[in-house]
Amino acid sequence: MSGARLERLADLAVSVGANVQPGQVVSVSGRSGQEDLVRAVAEAAYRRGARFVDLAWFDPHLKLARLRHAPEDTLDWVPPWHGERATTLGRMAAAVIALTGPTAPGLFDEVDPARAGRDRLPSVREAVEVAMAAKVNWTVVPCPNPTWAALVHPELPPAAAAERLWEQIARVCRLDEPDPAAAWRARGEELEASAARLSALRLSALRFVGPGTDLTVGLLPGSRWLGGGAQRRDGLPHLPNIPTAEVFTTPDPQRTEGLVTATRPLDVGGTVVRGLRVRFSAGRAVEIDADEGAGVLRSRVAVDDGAARLGEVALVDGSGRIGPLGTVFYDTLLDENATSHVALGAGYPMGADEADAGRINQSAIHIDFMIGDPAVTVLGVDAEGRESPVLEGGVWRGAAAA
Amino acid sequence: MSGARLERLADLAVSVGANVQPGQVVSVSGRSGQEDLVRAVAEAAYRRGARFVDLAWFDPHLKLARLRHAPEDTLDWVPPWHGERATTLGRMAAAVIALTGPTAPGLFDEVDPARAGRDRLPSVREAVEVAMAAKVNWTVVPCPNPTWAALVHPELPPAAAAERLWEQIARVCRLDEPDPAAAWRARGEELEASAARLSALRLSALRFVGPGTDLTVGLLPGSRWLGGGAQRRDGLPHLPNIPTAEVFTTPDPQRTEGLVTATRPLDVGGTVVRGLRVRFSAGRAVEIDADEGAGVLRSRVAVDDGAARLGEVALVDGSGRIGPLGTVFYDTLLDENATSHVALGAGYPMGADEADAGRINQSAIHIDFMIGDPAVTVLGVDAEGRESPVLEGGVWRGAAAA
Repeated sequence: MSGARLERLADLAVSVGANVQPGQVVSVSGRSGQEDLVRAVAEAAYRRGARFVDLAWFDPHLKLARLRHAPEDTLDWVPPWHGERATTLGRMAAAVIALTGPTAPGLFDEVDPARAGRDRLPSVREAVEVAMAAKVNWTVVPCPNPTWAALVHPELPPAAAAERLWEQIARVCRLDEPDPAAAWRARGEELEASAARLSALRLSALRFVGPGTDLTVGLLPGSRWLGGGAQRRDGLPHLPNIPTAEVFTTPDPQRTEGLVTATRPLDVGGTVVRGLRVRFSAGRAVEIDADEGAGVLRSRVAVDDGAARLGEVALVDGSGRIGPLGTVFYDTLLDENATSHVALGAGYPMGADEADAGRINQSAIHIDFMIGDPAVTVLGVDAEGRESPVLEGGVWRGAAAA
Repeated sequence: MSGARLERLADLAVSVGANVQPGQVVSVSGRSGQEDLVRAVAEAAYRRGARFVDLAWFDPHLKLARLRHAPEDTLDWVPPWHGERATTLGRMAAAVIALTGPTAPGLFDEVDPARAGRDRLPSVREAVEVAMAAKVNWTVVPCPNPTWAALVHPELPPAAAAERLWEQIARVCRLDEPDPAAAWRARGEELEASAARLSALRLSALRFVGPGTDLTVGLLPGSRWLGGGAQRRDGLPHLPNIPTAEVFTTPDPQRTEGLVTATRPLDVGGTVVRGLRVRFSAGRAVEIDADEGAGVLRSRVAVDDGAARLGEVALVDGSGRIGPLGTVFYDTLLDENATSHVALGAGYPMGADEADAGRINQSAIHIDFMIGDPAVTVLGVDAEGRESPVLEGGVWRGAAAA
């Protein structure tokens, strides 16, 4: 990796993303292939005054050995110290920095998907809870690596693919701006304005209509649209995703109906799911099909009642930098910010008002999949059932437009 | 690394070293450069029926960033989940497999030794306690890597150095035997027999006499010599070190007197200490000097009262495979099994009888250093103060001889 770009990305993750404070404990998670950025993040965090940077390392090859050999009824077991670590980070109001980007694509291709779905590591229930409850100032940033580059740009020789991926990531992370932090503050304000306009519409539901898709996602009376930055529950601002281009809210987990066809592949714990089609009835995903990888998703969705229901609906207009690249990154962070999406599993408490707190979806999982496309129109449905376009051809419409 | 050798070493660590049992949780610890053996160990453990293999990964570059930037009064802070993990492994009676071998030699050379000495990670107090209390079936095995090979064989080109180190490690781990497990059982019995003969002598002290050394190490009335295999406290046998060539006991922490000159360099948390000379008085290390690296050791020895006292004295005769190589490995596991040594810090409860339990040295550290040499004679001192040779020119003498 290029040293200067690497340091800029690390600084951005630490200063703008997690907004690490002097004296904080910082968790940084990574995998083989991400060593350089992990180290640059640690260096940046300590320079900013971190008290301790704790590494959460994951080796998918150890998971593969487990999936191959361990008894099936043990595959959902998680050593208690993983959850204790996450809970303690929450209690400490720590900073949490996660790196994304495939490092071993296809590693689990030969594994029985029912087995693969039972082992959710490195995802840990307590870590999801702590982030959703805004107990930590967290961020997720992409980490370019040669393996990922070969997956995204198979037509290029390795060095050129690596360079191309780095260029794309530098661009979407706005590292090419004179002041990336200022660029993200401005971008955050745009997204917050879009979210405020959507909240003001007080929609009852959203309807997605396009090829293979006619899906109505019911919203809660107090569904609040969010975008750009977030605040830890004590008010500390942070930017949970770099890059980010979405506005999102917590839907009503009981009122999703219809069929949706995913518009991009998604990676579920190392298995690529392609051509995904999900039918919802009374809020539940009752049919899950795909051209590839459906079994892993079906297995994840079986872990608890909330796993089959939506916890997030997000809209992405055409103003972002990821969508126009036309590149499938096989990485949720980038692909979900290319286009509108929904997520199965845990909802965001911040995305609903107090009165709806008990209605937010609860689950140990949170799996996004992409359903937006220029050919998919998003309609807003008001309390009287009247529909009007909100997002069409990637452009905000009606009162959702600036 | 060679695949077949790698698998043989991993199998040996799992089956003979830790003696992993079906259904056990297994901890494996490693660092960058050790990925291949970590993965082979996990594969071997799962094949043997492990319930879960948990990775404890350490990145010395993160430690370097901490040592460079974090406030000095925070450097001995350890996140509580590290200790909780070790304690829980003990409660579970888990298997613990650690890999040794330098992966980043010299990384801390520019760091103030007083600062470097305060940060003892990846060593964790609770992990030392759990191992010393025989709550886990544990082993330490060497992991060849190219960086280590270049350190040990700087005169060879990289590929040849790597091959030479692998050959040496395969030889000292007896992977060249038709049945390495059987070879270690036989070797364990030899060491147990030597230990039994030493215990039967009921020595009051050992005296080491040689160039720069005249050191008397007092023993406890019930000092029990150990060697070869160990047992978890419920009796499960395991082999804590592969390779092993030592017989050792827990000395009286109040009765070490004199001057000792180390006969090999030692690595203390990434800093090489060369030309070490330590003067003891009434059991305490009262002067620590060295040609290089004394500061790190002085800082470690200041962590608690027991850190300046001996917790182990070990004798190594000339029958092992490491000593004859004449190679300095800059790795305690190998170098301590090349020649006689002592360790500052925590003593082994198994090395003393019940009546002496309260007299065993207590400390958060356990740092071995080598004091044996063909030119160093080891004398046994009986209750009346009479001295007679125990080990001379690498050969057992008197009643210590078979």
